[in-house]
Amino acid sequence: MKKYEFLTNISLDDARQKMIDAVRAADIPVATEVVKVREANNCVTARAHYAVRSSPHYVASAMDGIAVLASKTVGATEGNPVRLTPDDYIVVDTGDPLPENTDAVVMIENVVEAEDGDVLLYSACVPWDNVRQVGEDICMGDMIVPSYTVMTPALIGAFMAAGVYEVEVVKRPVFGIIPTGDEIVDGDADLKPGDIPEFNSAIFSAMLSDWGADSIVYPVVKDKIDLLEAAVTKAADECDAVLTIAGSSAGRDDYTSTILTNLGELLVHGIAIKPGKPAVLGMIGKKPFCGMPGYPVSGIIVMEEIVKYVCALLTHREPERDETVKAQVSRKLTSSLKYEEFLRCRVAEVDGKNIAVPMPRGAGVVTGFAKAGGLFVVDQNSEGLEAGATVDVALQRDKVELENSLSITGSHDPLIDEAADLLIRQDERTYVVSSHVGSMGAIMALRAGETALGGIHLLDAESGEYNKAYVRQYFPNGGVTLIRCVIRQQGLMVKKGNPENIHSVKDLIGKRYVNRQKGAGTRILLDYLLEKEGMTPDDIYGYTREEYTHTAVAAAVADGGADAGMGIYSAAKTYGLDFVPLWDEEYDFLVRDSALETPEVQRFLAVLKSDEFAARLTEMGGYTLEAPGEVIPVDA
Amino acid sequence: MKKYEFLTNISLDDARQKMIDAVRAADIPVATEVVKVREANNCVTARAHYAVRSSPHYVASAMDGIAVLASKTVGATEGNPVRLTPDDYIVVDTGDPLPENTDAVVMIENVVEAEDGDVLLYSACVPWDNVRQVGEDICMGDMIVPSYTVMTPALIGAFMAAGVYEVEVVKRPVFGIIPTGDEIVDGDADLKPGDIPEFNSAIFSAMLSDWGADSIVYPVVKDKIDLLEAAVTKAADECDAVLTIAGSSAGRDDYTSTILTNLGELLVHGIAIKPGKPAVLGMIGKKPFCGMPGYPVSGIIVMEEIVKYVCALLTHREPERDETVKAQVSRKLTSSLKYEEFLRCRVAEVDGKNIAVPMPRGAGVVTGFAKAGGLFVVDQNSEGLEAGATVDVALQRDKVELENSLSITGSHDPLIDEAADLLIRQDERTYVVSSHVGSMGAIMALRAGETALGGIHLLDAESGEYNKAYVRQYFPNGGVTLIRCVIRQQGLMVKKGNPENIHSVKDLIGKRYVNRQKGAGTRILLDYLLEKEGMTPDDIYGYTREEYTHTAVAAAVADGGADAGMGIYSAAKTYGLDFVPLWDEEYDFLVRDSALETPEVQRFLAVLKSDEFAARLTEMGGYTLEAPGEVIPVDA
Repeated sequence: MKKYEFLTNISLDDARQKMIDAVRAADIPVATEVVKVREANNCVTARAHYAVRSSPHYVASAMDGIAVLASKTVGATEGNPVRLTPDDYIVVDTGDPLPENTDAVVMIENVVEAEDGDVLLYSACVPWDNVRQVGEDICMGDMIVPSYTVMTPALIGAFMAAGVYEVEVVKRPVFGIIPTGDEIVDGDADLKPGDIPEFNSAIFSAMLSDWGADSIVYPVVKDKIDLLEAAVTKAADECDAVLTIAGSSAGRDDYTSTILTNLGELLVHGIAIKPGKPAVLGMIGKKPFCGMPGYPVSGIIVMEEIVKYVCALLTHREPERDETVKAQVSRKLTSSLKYEEFLRCRVAEVDGKNIAVPMPRGAGVVTGFAKAGGLFVVDQNSEGLEAGATVDVALQRDKVELENSLSITGSHDPLIDEAADLLIRQDERTYVVSSHVGSMGAIMALRAGETALGGIHLLDAESGEYNKAYVRQYFPNGGVTLIRCVIRQQGLMVKKGNPENIHSVKDLIGKRYVNRQKGAGTRILLDYLLEKEGMTPDDIYGYTREEYTHTAVAAAVADGGADAGMGIYSAAKTYGLDFVPLWDEEYDFLVRDSALETPEVQRFLAVLKSDEFAARLTEMGGYTLEAPGEVIPVDA
Repeated sequence: MKKYEFLTNISLDDARQKMIDAVRAADIPVATEVVKVREANNCVTARAHYAVRSSPHYVASAMDGIAVLASKTVGATEGNPVRLTPDDYIVVDTGDPLPENTDAVVMIENVVEAEDGDVLLYSACVPWDNVRQVGEDICMGDMIVPSYTVMTPALIGAFMAAGVYEVEVVKRPVFGIIPTGDEIVDGDADLKPGDIPEFNSAIFSAMLSDWGADSIVYPVVKDKIDLLEAAVTKAADECDAVLTIAGSSAGRDDYTSTILTNLGELLVHGIAIKPGKPAVLGMIGKKPFCGMPGYPVSGIIVMEEIVKYVCALLTHREPERDETVKAQVSRKLTSSLKYEEFLRCRVAEVDGKNIAVPMPRGAGVVTGFAKAGGLFVVDQNSEGLEAGATVDVALQRDKVELENSLSITGSHDPLIDEAADLLIRQDERTYVVSSHVGSMGAIMALRAGETALGGIHLLDAESGEYNKAYVRQYFPNGGVTLIRCVIRQQGLMVKKGNPENIHSVKDLIGKRYVNRQKGAGTRILLDYLLEKEGMTPDDIYGYTREEYTHTAVAAAVADGGADAGMGIYSAAKTYGLDFVPLWDEEYDFLVRDSALETPEVQRFLAVLKSDEFAARLTEMGGYTLEAPGEVIPVDA
């Protein structure tokens, strides 16, 4: 075992500044190229550009009408029009050169035709009325734009108006990206256990492209220091900057910092952030180098917080900034004093407030990252945040999605995703922001005013009745409405062919079970069925092994790590598992009354009632629909 | 003369909604294509996509460390470590499959090596510590994204993690763009008077591209109804939507509305906006059609306010929105009740407030549009705005430019643009926002707190002294600091070879002069020189013809529309004019004391003192630098 070497733990601001200073100190020459203005949208000008022609380049009529000598119109009024003969005026269109011996244009709307081609004017004009002077827009020699200006559509027009058809722009820098690691395989390959599909390079390339840089993705390099060193040398030779992926920490096969020390200058190894700590920063000659952590979320954070700024220096752009909004954190969070922590969250508008629901922290959960509506930071000098604390959330998606968001927090069912898809396909879009926190989580979130609605399937053991009893208990003063959704089949998911012969909860004894998290309706159902059979949780091996969704339970069974788990039919079907039906339950939605009349909730209810929704559920199987979208009275 | 037909004057909201409703009613099928996920950044998903593999796809170590059975670590404490033999643990790296008969991973940092390969653990672990379950990120069958979702770098990672390497996306719609008009010529050509270079198609193409659409630009079509009808028919055939440029009004050669009536359905002809009124909207079968006004600024407004929404429907994206800020309008504005007016403005932060300075309203000034930092609207039911009124300014450039803006309002000199270029090229960028309102305009803006600094060259006729007297008069209580800039040569600009033999202001009698606007220091200098010669403005033909910059005056002389105008040497040089030096004047900057210590002003002063600035001015000619950037005491 290689001895563990502790990384440095310098602050993000210091790490970023070190890198910025190093890039500036390298005084990298600006590579430029000349491109056609028509094709230069979003390019960055490399120098000031000046008009080579005035616009307009001649004195022109600014209107359709007649060109006149203003002095001939003096005295015209409503009651006393001036009559002009055909010798006194010339018909002009917008953009026509102003004819000789005229100095004003009367708009055609104000010209009244009389006999013999004469016209009557009911008001006088003054010289240069409706006339565009030479250079009204821009004069030859005027600066159109300074250096380092991002070309926009309007600027393209300005350049062409000013007679400039080519523009010298900053060449897009090229980043060399080198994925590394013995276990890394090309993502398309058939994966064996231990294989890690390579996709960070695709994420980083796309980010760089958004920031105005190109990239070359090199083949995956194994964890051998000589191979790695050769690959980095080649990339530093061929590109303007180099990123390696993985191997940036201090483990057995982490050679990045050693290689950088050998080839260039190591500036930072370890930043006080989470995720993203094990980053390696430095320079190889005039080429910035970043050793990126292998976990995708860590990598994305280091890209955003470090590489983006390096890229801005090379592209001569301002680093992009996310739009931010204020939001209330939905739950208490603890955070270490050892680092600045970046937290992903779902963010939705509920009762006019923005609520940020922190998402799982795993550095590997790129899907979670992709689905996150926002990102917020817990400072290094903070031990955490209280529930309800206000944070600045950097939006990861368009703000319009937040403004038209519908928060659904509670029990997981894939029907929520299907409804979300139907909602986004409507003329007036609704963006569903869903969190899977179980049925009891739905009730807590609704009580706290943190969600507009939530899915629940809560069995009252005494009455055998679904949902209503819980509503009466947790909302004694009302404030919520129960909306019928579906009856769905719950059952045991077991391997194809049911090799362990599991047909009831009694058969779970001696088998490896995988359970759902506390508060999940499916777990409450298991508890109910165990009690009915006179069993206790201790009878079930794996009762404490918790997953958060039906599909996660199905995946654990399909993987062979468990023999059975409880879930809905469609999850078993997706995984090719056998399904032992145990119970038909009512899965309904609980809606805050304050949200019930919002367009978003009304659209959601309309979707529940739609034929398309019914068709999708039929396709998935295991559901019965009886008047979905209707209100269920809960009074005892 | 064709009779003028009044256009309709429906509100922008109604016009937009009519068009949106028509496009929705056409129920245009969604064209899709399958692209590689790696190349799908910024594409829009055409349907929901689901994971085909769980991520991770096996139970994995989440850390570098040793895999153990958690039960074997029970009881380990700081004072009483547990010793494991090599049989009890297996060294694992991050991402390794969890070995058989282990259920937890201890981080390498917490493993203490002992003799014979044994290790000591000083704390116990629980099952699944540092273990990633199958599907921790996403499970097979889970929806990755719904329909109509813009692909992001993180989503690219999510797709690949979920085993999906191709994505069905909405095909980029193609807009056919047809420039029209007898006077329109390809922009690259040598221009004769009356020729209008075609560049609107380039502006519109770039805008469409930013909004996710492609375009085909067709050759310019002359103003002949049969040619136009054939061109529109062809474009409607080949593309998903059609834009014509110009001919959309009701003048002699405006056939667009007739053509649309012939080929499809005319929905709107004339919108109550300025600029942008003469737009023609409708459908040709399932193809949206917009007849765009010919003036570039009008066209850009109609693109932003109408075509963007049509494009959003075809691309299945949300229409882009500009970021907005609150700002105070610098001067009183009147606006007609006949239309909603879109005003371009320069916007800068002064003393912590955002100030919006309205720019000239001409519909043809595309350069002005391109340089505008913002856009705001005066409602149709408003007759105008008072100075100081708060407006919502839609930012046309990155907000960071506003935050690092330096407002320079006052006398025009190209040296301001050169300084602006040097300021943007520095490590810490400053964005100069300049308005040319003359020296007296500078003084008024400084008094009103609307600018940080302004250029002035104001001659006191009595003392013959520059600037100081005005500062004492207009700022009796101080509050501003005068900063030395340059001594510059003013003179008469006349045609090459001086054919009119103009050598002094006396020689202007009987000649065609072009003057500067009221309040301009150059005009004040003329008045001073006239008075010295015992002349009056009435002696000068063209005294009332006003231009706003030195180059605009030079352009008028070069064009032949005037025989002489006063200005600085560099303007005459740019236009190849002869220059008759008359006066050396002090051009200085007046800075609000409240802004003097801001980084932006300090950087500006540093630029004035720099060798690069001096070199550029030497190159331009006509300037003498004596301690630029130094404070000039103004006490009498």
